[in-house]
Amino acid sequence: MRVLCGLWFKLRRLRDVSFLGTFRRPLSSDAMRLVQFSRKGNEGGIRVGVEHEQGHGVIDLKAFDPSMPPTMREFLELGQKGMDCAQRALSSGQCIVPHSDITLLSPVTGPDKVVCVGMNYRDHCLEQNAPIPTEPIIFSKFPSAITGPYDDIMLPNTSQEVDWEVELAFVIGQKGKHIKEEEALSYVAGFTVANDVSARDWQLEKNGKQWLLGKTFDTFCPLGPALVTTAALKDVHNLGIRCLVNGGVVQDSNTNQLIFKTEKLIAWVSQFATLYPGDVFLTGTPPGVGVFRKPPIFLKRGDVVECQIDEIGSIRNTVV
Amino acid sequence: MRVLCGLWFKLRRLRDVSFLGTFRRPLSSDAMRLVQFSRKGNEGGIRVGVEHEQGHGVIDLKAFDPSMPPTMREFLELGQKGMDCAQRALSSGQCIVPHSDITLLSPVTGPDKVVCVGMNYRDHCLEQNAPIPTEPIIFSKFPSAITGPYDDIMLPNTSQEVDWEVELAFVIGQKGKHIKEEEALSYVAGFTVANDVSARDWQLEKNGKQWLLGKTFDTFCPLGPALVTTAALKDVHNLGIRCLVNGGVVQDSNTNQLIFKTEKLIAWVSQFATLYPGDVFLTGTPPGVGVFRKPPIFLKRGDVVECQIDEIGSIRNTVV
Repeated sequence: MRVLCGLWFKLRRLRDVSFLGTFRRPLSSDAMRLVQFSRKGNEGGIRVGVEHEQGHGVIDLKAFDPSMPPTMREFLELGQKGMDCAQRALSSGQCIVPHSDITLLSPVTGPDKVVCVGMNYRDHCLEQNAPIPTEPIIFSKFPSAITGPYDDIMLPNTSQEVDWEVELAFVIGQKGKHIKEEEALSYVAGFTVANDVSARDWQLEKNGKQWLLGKTFDTFCPLGPALVTTAALKDVHNLGIRCLVNGGVVQDSNTNQLIFKTEKLIAWVSQFATLYPGDVFLTGTPPGVGVFRKPPIFLKRGDVVECQIDEIGSIRNTVV
Repeated sequence: MRVLCGLWFKLRRLRDVSFLGTFRRPLSSDAMRLVQFSRKGNEGGIRVGVEHEQGHGVIDLKAFDPSMPPTMREFLELGQKGMDCAQRALSSGQCIVPHSDITLLSPVTGPDKVVCVGMNYRDHCLEQNAPIPTEPIIFSKFPSAITGPYDDIMLPNTSQEVDWEVELAFVIGQKGKHIKEEEALSYVAGFTVANDVSARDWQLEKNGKQWLLGKTFDTFCPLGPALVTTAALKDVHNLGIRCLVNGGVVQDSNTNQLIFKTEKLIAWVSQFATLYPGDVFLTGTPPGVGVFRKPPIFLKRGDVVECQIDEIGSIRNTVV
């Protein structure tokens, strides 16, 4: 199939030359679901793909165009060129790998940063008797915490208080510093679903009350299933968002409850640090986490946590 | 020169085959000062080098062996193979680029993590009336904060309280999780000098008291000048460490005052997160920072901050 795809690509390139500009749509008009995957039997090899519209499988971008890089971060660094290629691949309907032959990975791995936002849903502030913040509260996870949409969450022996947090996440598509709110959305490559898994004992009681360690155990950042481009979503700030533990709904809200929305978060953080393609933002969690329940509930081995956002998708991770 | 170096390398490879093992020294016996640099006029191009012993310049590893990768992180991912190549290059005395033709960069850029340790010198705890921690306090900077050993520190308009912190830093050379203290030193590629530049208003008063933002402005992590391998240091935990502002000594201590030393920090953090080659640890600062002086002193435009550690070297950054 790779040979056929390469040939098709060459023919298509000729056609591009004949119809210059035909495939040069601006980033914002491309409705796509981008993924990272590995082929079964080749678990080390990361590939970038785009979900086929009819759900038949995933289009392997590197099979479609051998010049495409293996990782999403490198793909995003290509900017418009990469997006155009993915759009051509999607239109082609070629180089489709069936879902049964692949393992979906986190749509981004190895970013420069995983930026997290604390207390960014009004109701989540109320449930912990905390004031509504007037400025975003920013913390982080190490990129090594990222795991795939259906991978296991590894319960550490050193915590008895591991909790769930469904979150809307977005990924930066373009380098920027001091980005203005009104231009911020053009810096977003797309949106995805995250679980900001949190060891509450380490987050809130230990480590000098710095949240990092409780947030950054390996596998504490499941992401996926796809990076959904902005154009594919009607209004990202008006989507149902839910978390289910063993099938029971524990969080159920809407992204219209966000205090600081995507544009504000990008403008805010880019005052401090240059943003790079691949940078991941977790925008905060709605009410319903385990630690503020009476009595508190925490995750145990065997639990299945499913995080859902309407139009984007759901991730499901088993606690082991 | 590249052609000559390539030829020399091929001849040397033949010699390696004839004298198998001659250059196969274990990592721990290689005393080297590894650097990242760019050639003047080619500022975008990162190269890995090793400092020539007589100080005549830097040996360009990629000129010596074209199979060597461009960045330190990729070089470290090669493990022993990379170290062996650097050792051969150093022994060769070939492919030397004079200091006048290069710009030294941070010895590592783009790591998975920059791990920082708070309150890790006894005297630094005393100067702020804080108890001596019984466990390391871990926070982080984003890798985007890293800057070169002689680059400018950019004073943000949004902080009036930017402070210095000289620190011993080390860089991980090998992937690991749950690393034992007694094996931890073998995971270190080398040591370097850091300035953990800190905006105290953002660190201590704002952002919900999470330190991240105050620590992670662009250019707030000068590193360098070289990654000095463990074998090149008699005892890394008994070195004079100093910070000078405009030539006046403001911090003057010894790494023997560290509460949690290299081995403990690696064992501690690797309980939480897998460590990867290139990961940077900043081990904490001794007394003498500006914020705890009476009255407090902060950095202003035009100040020159020099951080020195005996046997490792010094970095000098101008505040702009």
